[in-house]
Amino acid sequence: MNQKLKIGIVGMGNVGIHFLQRLLELGQTNLTVYSRSGNNLPVSIPAKDVQFTNDFKEFIDFDIVFCAVNDNTMVEMIRLVSKFAPVVSVSGTVNLNHLKTKHPVGTFYPLQSFKADQSIQWKGLPLFIEASDEKFKTFLMKLAQEFSGNAIELSEEKRQYLHVAAVFANNFTNHIIDLAAHYCREHGIEFDWLKPLINQTMEKIQTNDPHDILTGPAVRNDQSTIKKHLQLLEPDQKNIYQTLTKSIIKHYQ
Amino acid sequence: MNQKLKIGIVGMGNVGIHFLQRLLELGQTNLTVYSRSGNNLPVSIPAKDVQFTNDFKEFIDFDIVFCAVNDNTMVEMIRLVSKFAPVVSVSGTVNLNHLKTKHPVGTFYPLQSFKADQSIQWKGLPLFIEASDEKFKTFLMKLAQEFSGNAIELSEEKRQYLHVAAVFANNFTNHIIDLAAHYCREHGIEFDWLKPLINQTMEKIQTNDPHDILTGPAVRNDQSTIKKHLQLLEPDQKNIYQTLTKSIIKHYQ
Repeated sequence: MNQKLKIGIVGMGNVGIHFLQRLLELGQTNLTVYSRSGNNLPVSIPAKDVQFTNDFKEFIDFDIVFCAVNDNTMVEMIRLVSKFAPVVSVSGTVNLNHLKTKHPVGTFYPLQSFKADQSIQWKGLPLFIEASDEKFKTFLMKLAQEFSGNAIELSEEKRQYLHVAAVFANNFTNHIIDLAAHYCREHGIEFDWLKPLINQTMEKIQTNDPHDILTGPAVRNDQSTIKKHLQLLEPDQKNIYQTLTKSIIKHYQ
Repeated sequence: MNQKLKIGIVGMGNVGIHFLQRLLELGQTNLTVYSRSGNNLPVSIPAKDVQFTNDFKEFIDFDIVFCAVNDNTMVEMIRLVSKFAPVVSVSGTVNLNHLKTKHPVGTFYPLQSFKADQSIQWKGLPLFIEASDEKFKTFLMKLAQEFSGNAIELSEEKRQYLHVAAVFANNFTNHIIDLAAHYCREHGIEFDWLKPLINQTMEKIQTNDPHDILTGPAVRNDQSTIKKHLQLLEPDQKNIYQTLTKSIIKHYQ
């Protein structure tokens, strides 16, 4: 990033830390962090380019503040910070269009799961942009393009849908694989044995409609196998098996 | 494979075709197919090394017959074929231990999803082996090792559990991604935008416990986001969202 910006980050949780790291990677050196959890950074972050504040007033004349707080407090934080500087929410679910603010506000939403101690592949990562005025939007699109090379303008309404789709495609699949791993441990088999299967299916999804590649007892409506499986499950597992099996049968009727 | 075997395959469905292809790749040239659907092979298979039969008696003195038929008819087929030759089921759910047969029977179960027109990565693919006698088991383990380099001896009981785990880790995740893709189309957003997210999560699962990498509203018990999401779903989608969200909340309490 050629342009040196004055940048604030509110919140040093999973997302805030990754934004701070990325901004440092992009050569930004005027970074100010506001964090309830104190003035501690992960050891991986070179602290010399980072200042701390506990007063939003210090964001006056900043180019942008990234607000990376819990969804529950996001709107209130955006409202407060926007008194002093342009500010973006990094959340996919928070709505800002109704706010009347002194400085422009917007959304800068990376469609990815963040954990503080796990690296992020920024290149290609879709960043969804919305802003309360055209000039700020242009600025955000350019910034997002430098972040990941994949800036996408998306309305508040469509972003909500995207976030729901992501919960299905990412969180729910992750949880179901966790249930499978748990089930393996319960029954003395190795979760690793499942990985080639999972990998091949995920590879197929890159270039095929996921609808066309489904196999297994439910899509065949193989009631004999389904019954056998239900006998091998605890009540909670059975509930999930039945719900998803019914859904598959319905979708392939 | 150095040893030239007399090999039968019963059934030319998704699995049977891939077994036939693999045996040809391994240099086997004495292959006989029994198929209800007629004597047609996919164009990709060189037909010169394949004979057809409609009489199980022709399997007399064969080294092995692979039975790749529907689970519902598998036991009956195994019973019939075992009058003439050693035979294996390629299914993960069918039980054979109770059978009394003239020739040995066994299981040769590849943990992978098969579609006729999609290629299979055999190398590393776990092949689960069981047999009614030690000599046949040794033969099957060697054969499976040549198929994929990953032959694993597994009891009937554990194989049932493995198959259930695979339905979760593979079929259910595939279906949920299909639901997400369907939801994207309904709401004018691109399913492709979700792919980096899915890929990163699946990469993480290779080396992390899936339990440790889950993110999203359910694991945070973020009821405000969950409520918003539920308003954006049709009844069937809502049912799945609620079932899996409850399950996540319970698992992380």
